Amino acid sequence: MPTTPWLYVDPTDFDLASIDTSSRRGPDGEKMDRERAEQLHDENIEALKALQYQMWAEGKHRLLVVLQALDTGGKDGAIRKTFGPLNPQGVKTQAFKRPTAKELSHDFLWRIHEHTPAKGQIQVFNRSHYEDVLVVRVHNIVPEERWRRRYEHIRHFEKLLADEGTMVLKVMLHISKDEQKERLQARLDDPSRHWKFDPGDLKERARWQDYQAAFQEALTETSRPHAPWYVIPADRKWFRNYALSTIVRGTLESVSMRWPEPAEGLHDIVIE
Amino acid sequence: MPTTPWLYVDPTDFDLASIDTSSRRGPDGEKMDRERAEQLHDENIEALKALQYQMWAEGKHRLLVVLQALDTGGKDGAIRKTFGPLNPQGVKTQAFKRPTAKELSHDFLWRIHEHTPAKGQIQVFNRSHYEDVLVVRVHNIVPEERWRRRYEHIRHFEKLLADEGTMVLKVMLHISKDEQKERLQARLDDPSRHWKFDPGDLKERARWQDYQAAFQEALTETSRPHAPWYVIPADRKWFRNYALSTIVRGTLESVSMRWPEPAEGLHDIVIE
Repeated sequence: MPTTPWLYVDPTDFDLASIDTSSRRGPDGEKMDRERAEQLHDENIEALKALQYQMWAEGKHRLLVVLQALDTGGKDGAIRKTFGPLNPQGVKTQAFKRPTAKELSHDFLWRIHEHTPAKGQIQVFNRSHYEDVLVVRVHNIVPEERWRRRYEHIRHFEKLLADEGTMVLKVMLHISKDEQKERLQARLDDPSRHWKFDPGDLKERARWQDYQAAFQEALTETSRPHAPWYVIPADRKWFRNYALSTIVRGTLESVSMRWPEPAEGLHDIVIE
Repeated sequence: MPTTPWLYVDPTDFDLASIDTSSRRGPDGEKMDRERAEQLHDENIEALKALQYQMWAEGKHRLLVVLQALDTGGKDGAIRKTFGPLNPQGVKTQAFKRPTAKELSHDFLWRIHEHTPAKGQIQVFNRSHYEDVLVVRVHNIVPEERWRRRYEHIRHFEKLLADEGTMVLKVMLHISKDEQKERLQARLDDPSRHWKFDPGDLKERARWQDYQAAFQEALTETSRPHAPWYVIPADRKWFRNYALSTIVRGTLESVSMRWPEPAEGLHDIVIE
């Protein structure tokens, strides 16, 4: 089993369409309200600060958090709310945009591998190698036989990371088509958000069902206990934030971390 | 089958100890003499120059050549004799030495993946990820359960490269223990080679049998038609050079390369 079963994608029994994007059910099935969720999120952040500091001091574990979502799904906000408060020396983020010519001259995992976390580090991916089985599939950028083989390559790659000591955590922020409409409209209505509006987003929106099918298959094919996918209902931002910080905290708490041993003779030192 | 069956490591039937390191048998089993081998090597180099130029112009295929050998096995000389004459813009070499602290803070394939070839490129590795199942095994640098899992990670990694369009070729330059003794002695006797003599090599030499066992297993576990190992008898340098250039040439000739299509309207252009 993965560290936390809540919201985990069980590859033997998963139906994306059946997930309520406005759900506010917590780990025990109870309905959360906003105030309670925000309070728990704040507690999670305090716990994460301590865990990340210890992780950094110990320099042994690594954590990779992959975030995927459709446009307006809330990746930027989620990163800001959960990882923003942590010590930036121990947390790196990497956004993967349309591949450059140089990146395209290598295999699809080449640019990804480069940014996997070092010991003691948390690395957050804003989009990732999953684009190579999502947008690439929806737009037929490579032949099906080629993107289909990538599921296996991704499984093997994440197994390598896990075997060599990296915790791998993958999160889909899941919104409804109606919620996306509202968020796109908000970008149109607010001059300070115009820069976030890309007319190309409308073309992607027209492929909504194709993307749902692509996510359904990608998550089923690659969610494994050592590299789990979680689907977070993300129509409510406060629920999304609470869920993400809870899952990251649960993952870090699942490994035993210790403060490094003091240097030899440290106890005999007297500062005069 | 791999591109050339000659000297290929068949993983179902391979015994490193049975290979004659001073063999001079060519692809048809005939005994080569030095003059003939040197002549064929020169022909191979001319063919390789043309193949590599076309590969570079086409910008489609990639070739990775991994070279492994015990100390004094002849990696440097082999690289100079086979890849030295090619256009350096299309050929890169990368030596992998003892991993740095930064490299050690990632999985063992992290530093390797970075240097895999781009489209149109030939990349030559002087040592490689195989050190992580050779020297690491012989010196117990990580626990057995960990290096043993690496065979599978290596197979998967090389399958990724092959599936995404890289030709992967792995070569062991195989010398006898007596030949190594002579070559080490030559380094001691010649002031211009003193810099190549590392007293640590003697410690490695004392582990000769351990290294043979490690090579035997690593080659069997990872030689596959899409990422073949070849063992080149390397006591005779002229034979080693001829064998390497023959195998590289055979690999490049196995893919169909074409000159890129001319830009539209090129045929109508008149230079005045």
